Amino acid sequence: MTPLQNDSLLRALLREPVEYTPVWMMRQAGRYLPEYRETRQRAGDFLALCQTPELACEVTLQPLARYPLDAAILFSDILTIPDAMGLGLYFSEGEGPGFERPLRSAAAIRSLGVPDPEQSLGYVMAAVRLIRRELGGRVPLIGFSGSPWTLATYMVEGAGTKNFSHVKGMLFDRPALLHELLGKITDAVTLYLNAQIANGVQAVMIFDTWGGVLSPQSYREFSLDYMSRIVASLQREAEGRRVPVILFTKGGSQWLEWMAASGCDALGLDWTIELGEARRRVGHRVALQGNLDPCVLYASPTRIRAEVRRALASFGTGSGHVFNLGHGIHPNIDPERPAAMIAAVHELSRPYHT
Amino acid sequence: MTPLQNDSLLRALLREPVEYTPVWMMRQAGRYLPEYRETRQRAGDFLALCQTPELACEVTLQPLARYPLDAAILFSDILTIPDAMGLGLYFSEGEGPGFERPLRSAAAIRSLGVPDPEQSLGYVMAAVRLIRRELGGRVPLIGFSGSPWTLATYMVEGAGTKNFSHVKGMLFDRPALLHELLGKITDAVTLYLNAQIANGVQAVMIFDTWGGVLSPQSYREFSLDYMSRIVASLQREAEGRRVPVILFTKGGSQWLEWMAASGCDALGLDWTIELGEARRRVGHRVALQGNLDPCVLYASPTRIRAEVRRALASFGTGSGHVFNLGHGIHPNIDPERPAAMIAAVHELSRPYHT
Repeated sequence: MTPLQNDSLLRALLREPVEYTPVWMMRQAGRYLPEYRETRQRAGDFLALCQTPELACEVTLQPLARYPLDAAILFSDILTIPDAMGLGLYFSEGEGPGFERPLRSAAAIRSLGVPDPEQSLGYVMAAVRLIRRELGGRVPLIGFSGSPWTLATYMVEGAGTKNFSHVKGMLFDRPALLHELLGKITDAVTLYLNAQIANGVQAVMIFDTWGGVLSPQSYREFSLDYMSRIVASLQREAEGRRVPVILFTKGGSQWLEWMAASGCDALGLDWTIELGEARRRVGHRVALQGNLDPCVLYASPTRIRAEVRRALASFGTGSGHVFNLGHGIHPNIDPERPAAMIAAVHELSRPYHT
Repeated sequence: MTPLQNDSLLRALLREPVEYTPVWMMRQAGRYLPEYRETRQRAGDFLALCQTPELACEVTLQPLARYPLDAAILFSDILTIPDAMGLGLYFSEGEGPGFERPLRSAAAIRSLGVPDPEQSLGYVMAAVRLIRRELGGRVPLIGFSGSPWTLATYMVEGAGTKNFSHVKGMLFDRPALLHELLGKITDAVTLYLNAQIANGVQAVMIFDTWGGVLSPQSYREFSLDYMSRIVASLQREAEGRRVPVILFTKGGSQWLEWMAASGCDALGLDWTIELGEARRRVGHRVALQGNLDPCVLYASPTRIRAEVRRALASFGTGSGHVFNLGHGIHPNIDPERPAAMIAAVHELSRPYHT
């Protein structure tokens, strides 16, 4: 492997000194880019895009060709694991993802196996190796997975949901069964992330998209505990460097202290909390990643710059901040806007790192 | 007016002694009840149901005939105000509400008038008077409105939204214009709630459904400040009693201290915070209303009872708690389940009030 030329992301995630605040964007390889839409079209459908390493590599690198980002993130989908577990993932246009065989019975949950990621998710590992080769050490590659709770919501509901009626019905009425399912998913996610690390990702992020729909007690019991188990079982060193782990619960800003005690290196933040306030609450235990409202990118470059300035000032001096949006970039954003944000982060953050 | 026979709701909202914890449910008059669906069918469409005082009264009283609830809440919709402002409200089956003329220009916002609620919302006032007469003093009647920010999101987007692209684009790029709109809505909501009070509602609730999608700074500037203005301008006494004001920001549990300083009497809570923790944070300034996860009602009566017990224990002894769900009851709930919850609240709360 070629040595890493820009390791600011890894250093900031470990609260080591950097010259400027590194920046990347959740869903930076995505629909807001015309070149992504072109590749997506060529792939035929979204699943084919995820499952063809050359195409996944191509879209992973697209935002890096446009913007001076400080990280690449593997292009994939959080639902590849349940698909590998046999649930039959499909994407219907405009409707979002669904599963042909949602988990609604104890028998279905008991018969679930834990997939070998090198086998059934081999296309992800091939993409990781290819992306690393194509990156040539420019910036680190971030791998990721959905959290067990988040994956369980899709697996039990069978599709996106507003009500969470099936999975929460199970949570309240059959908690032991839900724990059994979460345990299996946790094993699968652990193997999957360790395989990503073995194949070359240099940091990992766990996306707990739906942890924020739980009560505090349920969040700890059904989401955070399983993420902590994963964190404790990850291979935290590769190629002679520590592999940082980022944990992100959307809507979880009231639980930061608990999350910071999970053993992770950094917390992803949505925009409902000030960075400075979050930093006071977690102290020196973890780095912070975030947290610009993705809707700021609907605004003028002048206003984007002002919001970047405010966020940097809120975090304050010293390392431990990776700039990002507080959620994925929206599909209808003008690609000129992220350019303004990224330039502002690089320029305006230097005084905070002297 | 006949004297109020059960005033436990009003006393709990003012932190005065009660014998048990009063309980009602957000959207208690709603689709989960077969008798509601029957009336809705008879009305033809949802708007006709809101705009026909006899039918609005009928559905308001339906849950009280089924359950020993401690309050009635006016059946209406938060979008009646923008409709009265001339935006052309419609409901399309399965799609939710929309406006024929969303606000997208400064000219459109400047030409908006503040409606006289006794005129253009006379059907709401007629419903209030009729419900009070039919209630005969059994329990108090709660009136309500959407918050200015929440109404503005619908008025600018023109429909429900996941991205909030138009209204947040305005927030970031044309904040003065958004403030002008919010000022007009605030005047309209103030007149509307005062008219509800003049016509007979005995408590009012402000629903800030979308405040939780804002950053802390934006929440204060674009949502909370306007709600505080409304609270300061409300007629707080009627029929010789104080009219309590409840403020509810969904997803706002990180901002409870700010909300408690708004001048309101009580805060509505969603289920992402423990009642006991919320009580410690707001101290004796306000009462609390909430906060069972509506999904608990998918569970068995035994489990519902256990969750009620936990919530009551979390709040602890003394007055200042109104039991409720943390959000509206879901349309697919079995009507037997709320019965179990309400009975459990009444029975299990007595020891906390001796």
